[in-house]
Amino acid sequence: MATVVILGAGMMGSALALPLVDRGHEVRLVGTHLDRAIIEHLKATGEHPKMKLPLPGAIRPMQHEQLDEALVGADAVALGVNSQGVGWAIEHLRPFAASRWPIFLITKGLHRVDDHLLTFPDLVSAELGVHAAAIGGPCIAGELARRVETCVVLTGRHRPTLTALAAMLRGPYYHVFPSEDVVGVEACAALKNAYAMGIAFALGIHERKGGAAGSVAMHNYESAVFAQASWEMGQIAQALGGEARSAAWLPGVGDLDVTTNGGRTGRFGKLLGQGLPVPEAIARMEGATLECLDILATLRAGLPAYERRGLLRLADLPLLQHLWEVALDGLPVAMPFSRFFGGEH
Amino acid sequence: MATVVILGAGMMGSALALPLVDRGHEVRLVGTHLDRAIIEHLKATGEHPKMKLPLPGAIRPMQHEQLDEALVGADAVALGVNSQGVGWAIEHLRPFAASRWPIFLITKGLHRVDDHLLTFPDLVSAELGVHAAAIGGPCIAGELARRVETCVVLTGRHRPTLTALAAMLRGPYYHVFPSEDVVGVEACAALKNAYAMGIAFALGIHERKGGAAGSVAMHNYESAVFAQASWEMGQIAQALGGEARSAAWLPGVGDLDVTTNGGRTGRFGKLLGQGLPVPEAIARMEGATLECLDILATLRAGLPAYERRGLLRLADLPLLQHLWEVALDGLPVAMPFSRFFGGEH
Repeated sequence: MATVVILGAGMMGSALALPLVDRGHEVRLVGTHLDRAIIEHLKATGEHPKMKLPLPGAIRPMQHEQLDEALVGADAVALGVNSQGVGWAIEHLRPFAASRWPIFLITKGLHRVDDHLLTFPDLVSAELGVHAAAIGGPCIAGELARRVETCVVLTGRHRPTLTALAAMLRGPYYHVFPSEDVVGVEACAALKNAYAMGIAFALGIHERKGGAAGSVAMHNYESAVFAQASWEMGQIAQALGGEARSAAWLPGVGDLDVTTNGGRTGRFGKLLGQGLPVPEAIARMEGATLECLDILATLRAGLPAYERRGLLRLADLPLLQHLWEVALDGLPVAMPFSRFFGGEH
Repeated sequence: MATVVILGAGMMGSALALPLVDRGHEVRLVGTHLDRAIIEHLKATGEHPKMKLPLPGAIRPMQHEQLDEALVGADAVALGVNSQGVGWAIEHLRPFAASRWPIFLITKGLHRVDDHLLTFPDLVSAELGVHAAAIGGPCIAGELARRVETCVVLTGRHRPTLTALAAMLRGPYYHVFPSEDVVGVEACAALKNAYAMGIAFALGIHERKGGAAGSVAMHNYESAVFAQASWEMGQIAQALGGEARSAAWLPGVGDLDVTTNGGRTGRFGKLLGQGLPVPEAIARMEGATLECLDILATLRAGLPAYERRGLLRLADLPLLQHLWEVALDGLPVAMPFSRFFGGEH
C-alpha cells in the first residue's frame, strides 16, 4: 500500500482521499493557507465543513506548515489546489522536488506563457523535474466522496508513471482510464467550464420567458450549444497540439455533461441567461470559484497567437466568441446558431 | 414558395409544419390511418390534440384518403411516420413515385435486411427511385412547434437536393446544416434512443436509493455512460460505413443530450434504473412509442454479421451489450464501467 499526500483540502482534493483510503492507502490531507479552517474543523470534528460529510478516520488532516512532515515517505503527491493556486503549490513543493515522487493534479485549467497555452501537468513537470500527470473527466466531488461510481481519465506523458498511478488510484467505484494525450485531455478539462456556462444559458432564457421546468424547456437550444461546444473543443484541443478525439469521450463530452447538470458553472450560466448583468450574477454565486471566467480570459488572451500561427481560425469558434462577449464584455445573450458547425450553407 | 406534403400527423410531423408555414410555404399535413382522430380534431378545432397547441391556419390537415389530392403540385414530401410506419408510407407513395419530388424523413431508425442494416433514406431511395434525405439532430417536437431555436442536420447523398431542401427548410429559429454522411447521421439518430435509455438509469438508481434530485444525484455515473455512448456510437457509425465524427456533433452527442433531458426514452430508462421489471416499465409508459426497444432488437439481430465481417468487435461495445441484457433479457442494471473505453488497464 502507498502513502499519498494530497495538497489542497477543498472539495475535490478531499473527495479524492476516499477511493485512496478505501483501497487501503495512507492519505495525508494537507490544507493550503486558504484551507486552515477546513483542516481545523476536520481535526476537531472529523467532518468536512464544505462537503458536510464525515471523512474516514484513516485520512489524516494536516496544516500546510506540516508539509515537510507529510512528505516523509510519500509515494505520490496529488495537487488539489484551484487553478490560481498551482504557482503557490509549485513553490511549496520545490524544496522537496529531489524526492521525485510522481505528482498528479486534479486542478483544471490552462496557463498562458506569452503566445503559448500550457497544461498544468506540463508546467509542473518543467518546474519540478518530475513526471506530472493529471486527472480529467466527469467527477463531482460530493458524489465521489459518497462513493458514487465515477469514471475519470489519468493523463501524462510517461506511460510507466501513468500505469503505476492508475493501479494505485482505481477501485470498485473509481474507474481510471489512462491517456497519453495530455494536451487534448487538459484542454477539454479547462474548456468545459467555459462551454458549460453557455449551455446553461438555455435554462435561464426559459425561466426569463416565464417557463416552468419540464419537457418543453429549451432543450433544443441547449443541446445545439452542447454539440457546438463538442465541435469547438475538438478544434481547440487540436490547435494546442492535442487530439480532437479527446473531446468525444470522458474529457470532453463526459465532463461537459456533468458540469452542465451538476456544477456551479451551470448555475452561473443560467443567471446570465436570465439576463442578469455579469457583476450581479457573480454576486449571486456567493464567492464560489468561477473557473469559467478565468479560462475565458486566458483563451481570449492566448488563442489569437494560435490563429496567427495558422493552427485555428477564430471564425470557426462562434460559440466561444459569444461567450467572451457575454461573460467578459457584458453583452446580452444572442446565440449565433447560424454560424455554428462551419455555418449554415 | 414551395408546397410541402407532410405524411404523418404525430408530434414531429406536425411540428415540422411550423417552420415551413412561417417561411411562407404551403403545408398539407396528411395523417396516416393511425392519425385519423388527430386530423379530425385539427379540422374541427385547429388544435393539435397531442401537442395541446393550436396550429397556424395555413397548415391544411387532410386524411390519408386525400393523399393523391394532397400530392398535386407538391414540391417535396416529408415522412413523419414512426419507424414501423416507413413500409406503409412507401406503399402509399409508390403509385405517385413518377413525380420524383424529393422526399425527406424525420423518422429515425435502422432497417435490417438479412446481414445489413440500412438507413431509412437509403431504403426509400431504393424503393421509390428518388433522392431521399433525412433530418437528424436534437429536436423535441413540442419545442419546435413553440418556435424554440433548433439546430438539425439534413443528410442525403445528392448534394443539389440537400442544398435545395435546406434552403426551403431553414428559417430564423430552425437552423439546418447539411451533411452527406447519411450512414453516420442516421446510425446516430437511431442509436441515441437506445443509449439515452442507459444514461437515464442513473436517475432511477439514485431515486431507488432514496436520493432527492439535486447537485449530488449520480451525475458522475450518468456522464460516464454518456461518454461511453458517444464512444460506441462512433464505432457503430463507422462499422456501418459512415463517419465516426458524426457522433461528435448534432447527430450524436447533440441528439443524445436532448433525448436524455427531454424525451420519453429517458423516462423509460429511469424506470428500469429504479428496478422495475421491463413489462411493468412499459406499462407505466402508457402506450408511448419506445423506439429504444425496436432499435436494440434490430442491433442485436444485425450487428453480429458486422463482427463476422471484421468491421467491429462486440466486446468493444460493453454498454450496448448491457442495454440488451437489461431491456431485452430483463437482467438487473449493473453497469460494466471497468470495460468502458477499451477497458481499464
